[in-house]
Amino acid sequence: MWGGQYAHPPAEIMTEINASIDVDKALYAQDLAGSIAHAQMLAAQGIITRADADAITRGCEQIRREIEDGAFIFTPALEDIHMHVESRLKELIGEAAGRLHTARSRNDQVALDLRLYVRDAMDAADAALHGLQRALARRAEEHAGALMPGFTHLQSAQPVTLGHHLLAYVEMLARDRGRFADAHARLNESPLGAAALAGTSFPIDREATASALGFTQPMANSLDAVSSRDFALEFLSAAAVCATHLSRLAEEFVLWSSSAFGFIRFSDGFSTGSSIMPQKRNPDAAELVRGKTGRMFGNLIALLTVMKGLPLAYNKDMQEDKEPVLDSARTLLLALGAMTGMAEDFSAQTETMEQAAASAYATATDLADWLVRELKMPFREAHHITARIVKLASGQGLGLHALPLEAMQSVEPRITEAVFGVLDARKSAESKTSFGGTAPAQVRAQARAWREKLA
Amino acid sequence: MWGGQYAHPPAEIMTEINASIDVDKALYAQDLAGSIAHAQMLAAQGIITRADADAITRGCEQIRREIEDGAFIFTPALEDIHMHVESRLKELIGEAAGRLHTARSRNDQVALDLRLYVRDAMDAADAALHGLQRALARRAEEHAGALMPGFTHLQSAQPVTLGHHLLAYVEMLARDRGRFADAHARLNESPLGAAALAGTSFPIDREATASALGFTQPMANSLDAVSSRDFALEFLSAAAVCATHLSRLAEEFVLWSSSAFGFIRFSDGFSTGSSIMPQKRNPDAAELVRGKTGRMFGNLIALLTVMKGLPLAYNKDMQEDKEPVLDSARTLLLALGAMTGMAEDFSAQTETMEQAAASAYATATDLADWLVRELKMPFREAHHITARIVKLASGQGLGLHALPLEAMQSVEPRITEAVFGVLDARKSAESKTSFGGTAPAQVRAQARAWREKLA
Amino acid sequence: MWGGQYAHPPAEIMTEINASIDVDKALYAQDLAGSIAHAQMLAAQGIITRADADAITRGCEQIRREIEDGAFIFTPALEDIHMHVESRLKELIGEAAGRLHTARSRNDQVALDLRLYVRDAMDAADAALHGLQRALARRAEEHAGALMPGFTHLQSAQPVTLGHHLLAYVEMLARDRGRFADAHARLNESPLGAAALAGTSFPIDREATASALGFTQPMANSLDAVSSRDFALEFLSAAAVCATHLSRLAEEFVLWSSSAFGFIRFSDGFSTGSSIMPQKRNPDAAELVRGKTGRMFGNLIALLTVMKGLPLAYNKDMQEDKEPVLDSARTLLLALGAMTGMAEDFSAQTETMEQAAASAYATATDLADWLVRELKMPFREAHHITARIVKLASGQGLGLHALPLEAMQSVEPRITEAVFGVLDARKSAESKTSFGGTAPAQVRAQARAWREKLA
Amino acid sequence: MWGGQYAHPPAEIMTEINASIDVDKALYAQDLAGSIAHAQMLAAQGIITRADADAITRGCEQIRREIEDGAFIFTPALEDIHMHVESRLKELIGEAAGRLHTARSRNDQVALDLRLYVRDAMDAADAALHGLQRALARRAEEHAGALMPGFTHLQSAQPVTLGHHLLAYVEMLARDRGRFADAHARLNESPLGAAALAGTSFPIDREATASALGFTQPMANSLDAVSSRDFALEFLSAAAVCATHLSRLAEEFVLWSSSAFGFIRFSDGFSTGSSIMPQKRNPDAAELVRGKTGRMFGNLIALLTVMKGLPLAYNKDMQEDKEPVLDSARTLLLALGAMTGMAEDFSAQTETMEQAAASAYATATDLADWLVRELKMPFREAHHITARIVKLASGQGLGLHALPLEAMQSVEPRITEAVFGVLDARKSAESKTSFGGTAPAQVRAQARAWREKLA
Repeated sequence: MWGGQYAHPPAEIMTEINASIDVDKALYAQDLAGSIAHAQMLAAQGIITRADADAITRGCEQIRREIEDGAFIFTPALEDIHMHVESRLKELIGEAAGRLHTARSRNDQVALDLRLYVRDAMDAADAALHGLQRALARRAEEHAGALMPGFTHLQSAQPVTLGHHLLAYVEMLARDRGRFADAHARLNESPLGAAALAGTSFPIDREATASALGFTQPMANSLDAVSSRDFALEFLSAAAVCATHLSRLAEEFVLWSSSAFGFIRFSDGFSTGSSIMPQKRNPDAAELVRGKTGRMFGNLIALLTVMKGLPLAYNKDMQEDKEPVLDSARTLLLALGAMTGMAEDFSAQTETMEQAAASAYATATDLADWLVRELKMPFREAHHITARIVKLASGQGLGLHALPLEAMQSVEPRITEAVFGVLDARKSAESKTSFGGTAPAQVRAQARAWREKLA
Repeated sequence: MWGGQYAHPPAEIMTEINASIDVDKALYAQDLAGSIAHAQMLAAQGIITRADADAITRGCEQIRREIEDGAFIFTPALEDIHMHVESRLKELIGEAAGRLHTARSRNDQVALDLRLYVRDAMDAADAALHGLQRALARRAEEHAGALMPGFTHLQSAQPVTLGHHLLAYVEMLARDRGRFADAHARLNESPLGAAALAGTSFPIDREATASALGFTQPMANSLDAVSSRDFALEFLSAAAVCATHLSRLAEEFVLWSSSAFGFIRFSDGFSTGSSIMPQKRNPDAAELVRGKTGRMFGNLIALLTVMKGLPLAYNKDMQEDKEPVLDSARTLLLALGAMTGMAEDFSAQTETMEQAAASAYATATDLADWLVRELKMPFREAHHITARIVKLASGQGLGLHALPLEAMQSVEPRITEAVFGVLDARKSAESKTSFGGTAPAQVRAQARAWREKLA
Repeated sequence: MWGGQYAHPPAEIMTEINASIDVDKALYAQDLAGSIAHAQMLAAQGIITRADADAITRGCEQIRREIEDGAFIFTPALEDIHMHVESRLKELIGEAAGRLHTARSRNDQVALDLRLYVRDAMDAADAALHGLQRALARRAEEHAGALMPGFTHLQSAQPVTLGHHLLAYVEMLARDRGRFADAHARLNESPLGAAALAGTSFPIDREATASALGFTQPMANSLDAVSSRDFALEFLSAAAVCATHLSRLAEEFVLWSSSAFGFIRFSDGFSTGSSIMPQKRNPDAAELVRGKTGRMFGNLIALLTVMKGLPLAYNKDMQEDKEPVLDSARTLLLALGAMTGMAEDFSAQTETMEQAAASAYATATDLADWLVRELKMPFREAHHITARIVKLASGQGLGLHALPLEAMQSVEPRITEAVFGVLDARKSAESKTSFGGTAPAQVRAQARAWREKLA
Repeated sequence: MWGGQYAHPPAEIMTEINASIDVDKALYAQDLAGSIAHAQMLAAQGIITRADADAITRGCEQIRREIEDGAFIFTPALEDIHMHVESRLKELIGEAAGRLHTARSRNDQVALDLRLYVRDAMDAADAALHGLQRALARRAEEHAGALMPGFTHLQSAQPVTLGHHLLAYVEMLARDRGRFADAHARLNESPLGAAALAGTSFPIDREATASALGFTQPMANSLDAVSSRDFALEFLSAAAVCATHLSRLAEEFVLWSSSAFGFIRFSDGFSTGSSIMPQKRNPDAAELVRGKTGRMFGNLIALLTVMKGLPLAYNKDMQEDKEPVLDSARTLLLALGAMTGMAEDFSAQTETMEQAAASAYATATDLADWLVRELKMPFREAHHITARIVKLASGQGLGLHALPLEAMQSVEPRITEAVFGVLDARKSAESKTSFGGTAPAQVRAQARAWREKLA
């Protein structure tokens, strides 16, 4: 293949370590689209004939069909997707196939293919994120007023509503979408025409291929075009950050569906049994989403490591760019699909949640605030008084609302019956009317606003 | 401190693991700015008096001066920066200090402080990136026509110019700046007013504090505001990606300044000797920049790991958010400063570079192209013929340009004297006039365009 | 410093990026020990005089005291710990100080210092792990028979005992200790005498310095001695794996101390309140241990990244080896101390735990087993029958033990009163007598065996 | 499958995210071996009949043959390898297949399978490491006296020999083998018999299955047995550390085979051409080994992340344990095979290497030493004098050996003709006779000792 300089074939282990077709065949659509755009441009510029360009185009389209129909034969002997296409194209259209490679190198071709793949992957991720946001916003509106304990340190802190909690994730996912959108805009320049690394002496039209492939413009430096993979790293980073969000909600699904919490229940469709333990309803999908965070972080580190300290321009190390990208792209879609399914599926055990919100002294801060407001007590002192009352109640195994007035008065004689008004979890939640706060009316409005925005 | 519920002090190891003042004192400026904005808003809303707000503001300003003058006393006993400020403020202004904490919690305060810090860090990184771009663009214009071998696989591929090579980095850094700019825009919403997690019943004005602190608006969900650290992860990701770029240029500085390459030489100011070996001129700064990639990746993984699977809202794990952010922020500035210094400092050994560009058969592709153009040979065949000529020349230890015509004709009789025209490295480079290619005139124009843009 | 070749001082940013004294001063004890061993060897070999060696030794001992008393002055001008020692030694003993550097280079010196530090760090980690094992084994014996639900997927699976659960960690920690012990044995060869990289022409005795510093032998290849940091990577790996174990127990402490679980309660010494919410008893230490997993992973990735692709021998990148090692060493000790404190501190709410063990159908497998044993039913069928009974009970909001016999018989008529024997959580646990199983008598025996082994 | 509790099938996305057969079919041999051992033990203990055990054994052996012959049908419908085996076994031997699952759970089965796989992977890695060591030791003996520049900071430091350099890697690989050996010993306990998590009430013999499967003993705690994956993390860590070593040698192969260095040349079998550039001889295999470091780090981080903060016992997240392990196992073998091939293949360009060793002032330290020895000059002063001579020579573009005596005497008049004796690179190397130093005679002896040890 590499001509007259080489007297001997590659060593077997060399062939084995070099082959990438098992991985890069996933890029067939991008590769063919790039070839068609390149051939059409070559013809438009008079570098090849119109007939050749059309033969190439028809050949590429046939190859695409063959691959999608499962009729295409992949073989390790033809190292990668580019050689598979080249070889098949030659069978299909003969000598014209060779003209496709004018003013193009595998270096700009692989840069193009991966760039197109990442762009597609981000579009798919955006759609899936949108779907999860819609599901969450719908459930948030449904449960805008459903009380639950708000936790800090996994200890009951203050009552919030389930809708409020779910909307927090809608916000996080919106930023995830923003990251993909920004990355999309940044990567959307075409490397095609950089050739091996230095550009070419052929009178190519890089604007034309860029435009045909949906790019805003060609990249301005050919060395950069074939050497850079920051677009892939940015995708992997955004996916890893998104994975942290998904892992947090997944963790909560696991916690909430445990018998200790009992806040939600998944239907049979999202529960898994045990071949041994007949009672089991395991939240496997949530655990897997949480677990798959690992590969998302690993993929990011893998490509960061590959790129560390590589001199320009193309180095073979960069062949290792594809697997992490493909794996994170697939994993992200799978995880988002599973989370959307779970978000739509769970049934909230609102009574259990509300009981939990009312217990564990979650309204202690409201008591302290009452002392400040009604008795004009400095907050520090109010905090201290409240803590003593909490200790008293907890020693008797009672909630705050169940502690007799006299008991409270034994700590602070000025407390009156009116205090019971603020010890109620619902009233506590309703009082949090600051912008972004948990007051149900506000949560409902926010949920509706999101639903409209996402419709 | 935590009032009447607690009869005993924390265990010693508890105090030790909990203390964060050594780290978070770096956030003093952000913390004080937030407190001033909050106090002014509380007064504007009538929640505290104007006099109290002014006392708080003056107190905060004095504390800032004390810290900057080195007069402030830090003590492990006061766990973190917030308690240090609170305690000192009370000494300075008395009881009014306590009113600062109305409708605010440490949870929204730490979220605010780190957010402001990251915003500042990104501004500083942007300025430093700009500086490095300017230095590189200037050197690129200076060496727009300086030939060097373009490498793929670290093997000579085709001649390029040093200016072209340096501009590739200017492009990468431009995308790095883009990532920081996008991250800046995304983080620029205020968490202040989220209180502990649920919002507050006090009639606060979150728009006002957001505006006072340079945010575009308050965050829309209080749980999200205190729970999310994706803004920090995004910063760490962008810094890690930028570190890959810096590590690549650093690697090249190390290679180029080696005696094997001999392409550049650093002045005494950027060379380091050895206490043992008197001849040494080590490129320590470049090596350190390359090595510091490690901590940039490590910091990213550290915070990703912290955030994995954390339920809402605040968990103490999140105290671990600061060190990676601070370290990456400082490291990035240091690395950018060192790279800028080196970029300005190196002297190019243009003769050595040009000789290298002319050797190692870097114009073999030009020979193949000549065969295609002049002899109408198919590229595959031209490639094969050229490879045989390369083998012949290499067997005799000669460069292509030094191989006698007869020797070439022994492989392909139709080759004529005219072939020597394209075997010249400079002509090869000049022929690469496609957009983004290495032709010196184009490189010069690009360098000038960048210099104007960056001026 | 570097002599006649250099006409100009280093650039300011060069000095800034190069300085490491803030970090490597932590290695003073190792550095001084190495210098003393080297000087004594040089004298024994007749390379320097006995008088000089003794002066050096006395000087080093004085410097150690000065550092430990806080009297030693560190200055950024003297880049690192080696130069600080060299400079002070010259002040203290004059010209003889210069003879210390015969047949030694900073390259073998830094390799030695870090190796000694890592060895010390592993000894300290081993002792701390031993302490945590003891604490856990003691609590395991105390609670050998305390029932709790064994979880899979955080769903109740089968009853186990708290002692059994705690002993699982004793086993994990034993393997952690094994990893440190193996790493200790592997690193315990001396790099000293490798000089800059090639060895030396001085007649040194590497066996002697190795022995004086507690190594089993000198390293056999001088290039390897100055170039390798796998000993540090192995430490960081073992620490990261240990961190996963600690993070798991920490997660359980967080879960168990939540009001949803209520399995354990920490004393005031290991609880943290909130400045806002007076009821809070946060398990901060457990959260921090969990969170500090992040930096342990990050430190490992940092040094792996530094070492990737570095050619032999010493490169300045390797100066970045110290911070991750120091940080993981300190963090590990802190985390182990905190875990030991919590392990000793928590009070088990055994009644709550036992109730939980008895609920959530945790004995469903025992029912299925009873059907197999008593009714000779194939397991698959028994599993199916049991699942239907679970569904019936759960539909009525009853535990298995509380479901009337008639209800069970409506699913499988042959069930008799005797079935209630196996529906009891304690009997279930007691029946698991296979080696390593949860039967309390066995757990007690294991706990005792561990306590003896650890005494 | 999960019986009477479930009225509805899993959601489609649930099935998709849950299926693992594509990955875990790689564990078929381990799974079948475990089943045979378990069945034989059950019969020996009288829990099932001998006839059933023999039927199970024969069935498992047939399944193994079917899989190895490619005749076994895998289907996504049967989620994992365990269900595939169970289902096929039932077809082959009928009802007896069901008895295999007595006293065993999928939880101890997956723990067993992965443990056996990792053990096998480490044995294979050890053999491959041994092969690479042999190749390197042979080349080291061949080139025990071949001079090359020893580098620090990639700058010429002192002459060493190629054999010495290669032996440094033999040492590193020996430690890698030590890590795998230690990990092997540590993992070599059997989890089988832990059942779901709590052990079992059946009278099983865990010693028997442990012994049949080559383990030294059963694990002592059933919760630990099903919950722990530190054995896999330890494998991934050791593989990652080994990858750093391979990446360093790979980097050197890339550098050395570049035209700038020209130290080695790969045959056609380990060179790769370019479809565009006919002169190319790219060291693809070395670049790929270097690049694959990324996935080795990524796999480690992936599983560390999965395990962070997981409560006991089995969680579905742990299904993510297999892909990183399988990938690192395969990658390690591939990389070791490629490195062995390259180590055997390269031809050293000894003349070029020796010239490089003699240039770049690599014997400057020897000159300084001569001044100390012959002129009794203090080393600091000798260093300074030498540096000035280096500067003088370098200003004239001469090597030290080529600088006229008078020129040296212009710096230090006492220098005599005799100095030229130590300026010779070979003499410099020969003088480094300290243990582990680069003196060729010593290197040859070390290489021979290694070859005998590895024979």
